[in-house]
Amino acid sequence: MATARRMVVIGGDAAGMSAASQARRLRTPDELEIIAFERSGFTSYSACGIPYWIGGTVGSRDELIARTPEEHRRRGIDLRLHTEVTEIDLPGQRVRTRTVADGAAAGGSAGAEDWTGFDQLVIATGARPVRPALPGIDAPGVHGVQTLDDGQALLATLERNEPGIGPGGAPGSKRGRRAVVVGAGYIGVEMSEALARRGYAVTVLNRGEQPMATLDPDMGALVREAMGGIGIHVVTGTEVTGIRTDLHGRACAVLTDDAAYPADVVVLGIGVRPQTDLARAAGLPLGPYGGLLTDASLRVRGQRNIWAGGDCVEVQDLVAGGTRHLPLGTHANKHGQIIGTNAGGGYATFPGVVGTAVSKVCDLEIARTGLLERQASAAGLRFVTAAIESTSRAGYYPGAAPMTVKMLAELRTGRLLGVQIVGREGAGKRVDVAAVALTAGMTAEQMTALDLGYAPPFSPVWDPVLIAARKTVAALRAHPA
Amino acid sequence: MATARRMVVIGGDAAGMSAASQARRLRTPDELEIIAFERSGFTSYSACGIPYWIGGTVGSRDELIARTPEEHRRRGIDLRLHTEVTEIDLPGQRVRTRTVADGAAAGGSAGAEDWTGFDQLVIATGARPVRPALPGIDAPGVHGVQTLDDGQALLATLERNEPGIGPGGAPGSKRGRRAVVVGAGYIGVEMSEALARRGYAVTVLNRGEQPMATLDPDMGALVREAMGGIGIHVVTGTEVTGIRTDLHGRACAVLTDDAAYPADVVVLGIGVRPQTDLARAAGLPLGPYGGLLTDASLRVRGQRNIWAGGDCVEVQDLVAGGTRHLPLGTHANKHGQIIGTNAGGGYATFPGVVGTAVSKVCDLEIARTGLLERQASAAGLRFVTAAIESTSRAGYYPGAAPMTVKMLAELRTGRLLGVQIVGREGAGKRVDVAAVALTAGMTAEQMTALDLGYAPPFSPVWDPVLIAARKTVAALRAHPA
Repeated sequence: MATARRMVVIGGDAAGMSAASQARRLRTPDELEIIAFERSGFTSYSACGIPYWIGGTVGSRDELIARTPEEHRRRGIDLRLHTEVTEIDLPGQRVRTRTVADGAAAGGSAGAEDWTGFDQLVIATGARPVRPALPGIDAPGVHGVQTLDDGQALLATLERNEPGIGPGGAPGSKRGRRAVVVGAGYIGVEMSEALARRGYAVTVLNRGEQPMATLDPDMGALVREAMGGIGIHVVTGTEVTGIRTDLHGRACAVLTDDAAYPADVVVLGIGVRPQTDLARAAGLPLGPYGGLLTDASLRVRGQRNIWAGGDCVEVQDLVAGGTRHLPLGTHANKHGQIIGTNAGGGYATFPGVVGTAVSKVCDLEIARTGLLERQASAAGLRFVTAAIESTSRAGYYPGAAPMTVKMLAELRTGRLLGVQIVGREGAGKRVDVAAVALTAGMTAEQMTALDLGYAPPFSPVWDPVLIAARKTVAALRAHPA
Repeated sequence: MATARRMVVIGGDAAGMSAASQARRLRTPDELEIIAFERSGFTSYSACGIPYWIGGTVGSRDELIARTPEEHRRRGIDLRLHTEVTEIDLPGQRVRTRTVADGAAAGGSAGAEDWTGFDQLVIATGARPVRPALPGIDAPGVHGVQTLDDGQALLATLERNEPGIGPGGAPGSKRGRRAVVVGAGYIGVEMSEALARRGYAVTVLNRGEQPMATLDPDMGALVREAMGGIGIHVVTGTEVTGIRTDLHGRACAVLTDDAAYPADVVVLGIGVRPQTDLARAAGLPLGPYGGLLTDASLRVRGQRNIWAGGDCVEVQDLVAGGTRHLPLGTHANKHGQIIGTNAGGGYATFPGVVGTAVSKVCDLEIARTGLLERQASAAGLRFVTAAIESTSRAGYYPGAAPMTVKMLAELRTGRLLGVQIVGREGAGKRVDVAAVALTAGMTAEQMTALDLGYAPPFSPVWDPVLIAARKTVAALRAHPA
């Protein structure tokens, strides 16, 4: 081992452990020692699955774990759980670690500090939920849902509220438990569904005028309507001013400018920020969203042997240029794969993203790729929009479900800029067609000719995406260049 | 009207009536007279929906009709039903027509002939089912399913077999009625499901070693397995030699080299050929598959004012080069749109196809795009293949269904050549991602970085198409160039 080069990974979730696993595939332990530090007791889990675990759609926490610590260790990765990295010493090529409280139980001595040298360093510190400094925000009963530990804590609160009721359990579900979700982005809408499934009366409080700020307001309005239709109370254009606590210090209501919303549980879904304190302290370059900046090989800019990926980095925006912060598991896994390949002596690159995301609330599917109107405007682009309504299958085929497709294309060039889709079954993944077209730099006119799969159970004879492209072309033609 | 220019359309289904409708949108009746001749009594119907009508999934024939003759007439199209075009006189710029039998009832005089001059001619004569010259092939009880008339005739046979039983009707459905389907392509598998839904014991006879010759044999084997699993008897590698008739002259069994399969109904699903006798007689250019050859504006090659589209033309193959015959409603509709635009004085082109198709048999979804192995070989391409198994959703999410994705990519260049997908819900339309990538000329490596929509209810964190692309890249790397 003395002669082995050493790769140190900070963060044991998707990006970090994918990097470790991929490097291990390419290099034997004799060639490359791999040490991974993880603050929690979990590795390689699907944070995106947490709302479904809370809602009872997924039966247990362990189902969300793609690879356990033991599996990683068996593959020759020296994994140190409950161990936090507190400093990156770039000149010294080493990291300082500290055993965290839970680690004491696992045999470590809580608070014990140590230094570990590295030849290659992978920063995969993830993101942390935004937690505004409001009165009562840290009270028991107020929960983020970023990590499995968060999910566990939330479940403990829910079970405290519902003695004897399991997830999705009908008994007692009408006892009038109330949940308030702050923020109506992906996490907010997914958590509102999860809590509704558990029988809670759910109120979602949102600062913007429509839910899903990842959509244009006209498309967000469709989501609001659908959420209302399934009994979720959506309050928009409201600012949370604090959390009221009861005599025991537990959260009991969410306060806004003009109202108080009683709550047996409060879930924060306000968004996340890159967790880059370590990187910042080490003087590594951060972008406008606070994420680490890398080159296409995912080397931190200006560094030779420091890599970064996952929710703590900013990624190239292939449509608007510049960088964006898009904390999604799918990117994190790709990043890890690429970093592991490069750190292991291979060659791979991450070209960037077009900004695809898909979500659902009950049976409403919500998808977007590329730029929203406000993003296209901010990028200085001139564009047209077109929105159409169609169905997921031939209109005469049973189960044909409505969907709305909105498309943005650049004036003059006709280049596709973005697509948003809201609809029922079969709507969400249709956005992938536009994601590939964006990647290829296609025009709306080129899209009208796309040879997409057609059969009555799968699509109308004109796929909704094609109909949207046709209407976009008409809008381009009608608009004075 | 005397000064109006005249557009004559031969064939009143998707391509012909789309062309007529689009030209009408662009030109008033004073500017352009539009006459459409249709041999049957129907217009603008979904032939692709016939199996679902027969199987009872779609309630009635009329649901398959996108636009009725009356609707077309109200929009200013002079539609002549039950009128067959028997000759195209190119030098005279006119067509000869004859009223067909059914037309007598509609007021015409059966057999009456007439000449109609044109300034623009649209040939949309469709395709006709292959009907090999076998003993008994024309017996009552042997049915094609190309037109609504075919469907109506088949239904009459089924209702004769099942007195008092409606589509999908349970009563009496176990009386042991037997159906034999000849051919296991799209129509064959869709019709086998339709007949099974009506309670028939279904046997499918196929010349090739696997069903679905539109897939590679290894993928076709998955379809065979699934069909067997739902009780459809698939016999492959067999040649039909004739149809046995009973004392009344009705079909009662299908004969092969070595067996006789008793049948209360026989359905032919052997494929279709372009219906181009008129065009051939007029000396218009036909391609290797017997379809009309056009330029990208869908003008018949060498002609100024003769257009052709739909199932009677060959289309450019954007992957292998050359032309293919791909009789699909989705192409026919695009063709009509483009022809109508051009004949109406606008400008539009049809660049070609990549060869996407999607189908299902019960809950098995079957999709392909681009080239099969034998097509790539025939095109002189050297390639690698990779096949992977994954799921439609995150593995832990309820309803995650298995799918197999096979990918072909060209050696050296790494260019994507084709994708085939067989799986359950969520498998079929995933092929669209590959269809767009093929259109854009992407490499398998570029595909590994595609920003596809991810959330647990929609996809594993690595979409199956991405996993296939990764394995294909590995195969490309492993192969000596």
